[in-house]
Amino acid sequence: MPKAALIDGLQYANWSEKIFQQMRQGGVDAVHVTITYHETFRETVANIEKWNRWFERYPDLIFQGHSAADIELAQKTGRTAIFFGSQNPSCIEDDIGLVQVLHQLGLRFMQLSYNNQSLLATGCYEDDDTGLTRMGRAVVAEMNRVGMVVDMSHSAQRSTLEAIEHSSRPIAITHANPHSWHPALRNKSDDVLRALGETGGMLGFSIYPHHLQNGPACTLASFCDMIARTADLMGPENIGIGTDLCQDQPDSVVEWMRVGRWTKSIDYGEGSATNPGFPPMPDWFQDNRHFGAIRQGLRASGLDDAAIDGVMGENWRRFFAHSFQPQP
Amino acid sequence: MPKAALIDGLQYANWSEKIFQQMRQGGVDAVHVTITYHETFRETVANIEKWNRWFERYPDLIFQGHSAADIELAQKTGRTAIFFGSQNPSCIEDDIGLVQVLHQLGLRFMQLSYNNQSLLATGCYEDDDTGLTRMGRAVVAEMNRVGMVVDMSHSAQRSTLEAIEHSSRPIAITHANPHSWHPALRNKSDDVLRALGETGGMLGFSIYPHHLQNGPACTLASFCDMIARTADLMGPENIGIGTDLCQDQPDSVVEWMRVGRWTKSIDYGEGSATNPGFPPMPDWFQDNRHFGAIRQGLRASGLDDAAIDGVMGENWRRFFAHSFQPQP
Repeated sequence: MPKAALIDGLQYANWSEKIFQQMRQGGVDAVHVTITYHETFRETVANIEKWNRWFERYPDLIFQGHSAADIELAQKTGRTAIFFGSQNPSCIEDDIGLVQVLHQLGLRFMQLSYNNQSLLATGCYEDDDTGLTRMGRAVVAEMNRVGMVVDMSHSAQRSTLEAIEHSSRPIAITHANPHSWHPALRNKSDDVLRALGETGGMLGFSIYPHHLQNGPACTLASFCDMIARTADLMGPENIGIGTDLCQDQPDSVVEWMRVGRWTKSIDYGEGSATNPGFPPMPDWFQDNRHFGAIRQGLRASGLDDAAIDGVMGENWRRFFAHSFQPQP
Repeated sequence: MPKAALIDGLQYANWSEKIFQQMRQGGVDAVHVTITYHETFRETVANIEKWNRWFERYPDLIFQGHSAADIELAQKTGRTAIFFGSQNPSCIEDDIGLVQVLHQLGLRFMQLSYNNQSLLATGCYEDDDTGLTRMGRAVVAEMNRVGMVVDMSHSAQRSTLEAIEHSSRPIAITHANPHSWHPALRNKSDDVLRALGETGGMLGFSIYPHHLQNGPACTLASFCDMIARTADLMGPENIGIGTDLCQDQPDSVVEWMRVGRWTKSIDYGEGSATNPGFPPMPDWFQDNRHFGAIRQGLRASGLDDAAIDGVMGENWRRFFAHSFQPQP
């Protein structure tokens, strides 16, 4: 029987050979990486060019993933498959044709909004949530057609529920936790999580400290108990990891994530004036070498081996397998 | 034994269902189509979006070709494989990273220049030909690496000879004829054709009237005799068809080809003030249904069946097979 896959449902690190080496040391088979936030299409392409250089420079460590079969290829060749995603739809501008073009370039996930209102949907920081826009419904249908996953991690509740309902294929919340465990604005209500699970969608559990009970002081036991309870709520096959690891990033990057070019003021998002930068990660998960700790924590929380394999990667593998190809 | 392939090495029509139907009626298995001239990268992507719509709308007639295997797929499924090319390097702007990005989007041919000096090489209408530029040499190496064919149809002689020499993979002149047969500025000297053939490169014979002896009045016999003589010069395995068919195009398009955005004046290119538009095609080749006439003409000119199969498509098939994949 092949080894269970280890897959991370979201990272946005300051990529370097060191981090790619750590992925290998940690036995990470695949990572969904954010390649763009508020960038235009052309700027997103420049980011893809940077990735092409990394793929060319470190072919023994990483390669671009296009389909679930690339996870097996990663396992066979001892490398990490990198799958592209966008956290905001800026990359498609106002042009639905760019959905297919970006899919051709390997984009496999796109958030319909990032905190703010977008052309497609409402973000979780807006006062009013008007659900999917006209273009939002059209773009979801196009994403369904070409095989690009709708990701609602940073979207507001009504928009998220409408995306779940409107999408003909299961969607994902790649990096967030249950609001019932830690009531952060970015964490999701049981209503959303139940609707997500009932439609075969996936939740990736975030280790970004603002999403954790007690922030960086969150214990591994608390995190893993929360996962076990969410398995009961959503079904053990609809959950995975989405660390939101932002390793080695300067604080200027979290400012870009929050502020983009949409305001001249500072917006602290999940941070604050006294805590504006990236928060420190919990001691039990500093980088890609530490997924083993989560596996052990899940065992201590009472999950059986099959459920643990599912959470650590097999559920993402199955989700990738029915999500990335064009609709027949 | 599988049917010999019918491949056209260059067309730039005003695409429509009618033309795609004619490709099927003519049994055309694959066409290298020009998707961009002086367009920027973003404008080229908009053209790709248009092609994506045609592929979505006419899946029983056409599909996008990526590799030589798609020619077989076309034959098996009774459709025409469409391979993308650019006639000018404007689409990569000043950014070598766009070579790989455009290859990922399916671009399989790129001319290093179109009549004028480009960032890469000199065009055939310039007074002085300085050969490949510094960026030109770098881009040729990158095209070699990713599997994009260097096309020198509209380039000047020294630049063309340097491209042949500098490229580590065979290059192409997709649409031109021997200068010795018809001394048009766009037609190629025996020196160029010999160097092209000696390196395994391909010449596609053009039926664009400005490249023909006697223009639109050129006889099929004269055209086919010229092909037979060129087979002797270059080797029968290094020649194919590249009709340069510009079917149903309004004359505004030939003006865009010639003038782009580089001058505020009118430049007539191969035309003249009294003959500024697209010239009429010869009566024996009006559209994609008429390749059979060329086959018959080649037989009358004394070519044997194997040589005729080569010219009509098998030579392009072999060239595609060793040109479009990344360098190992």
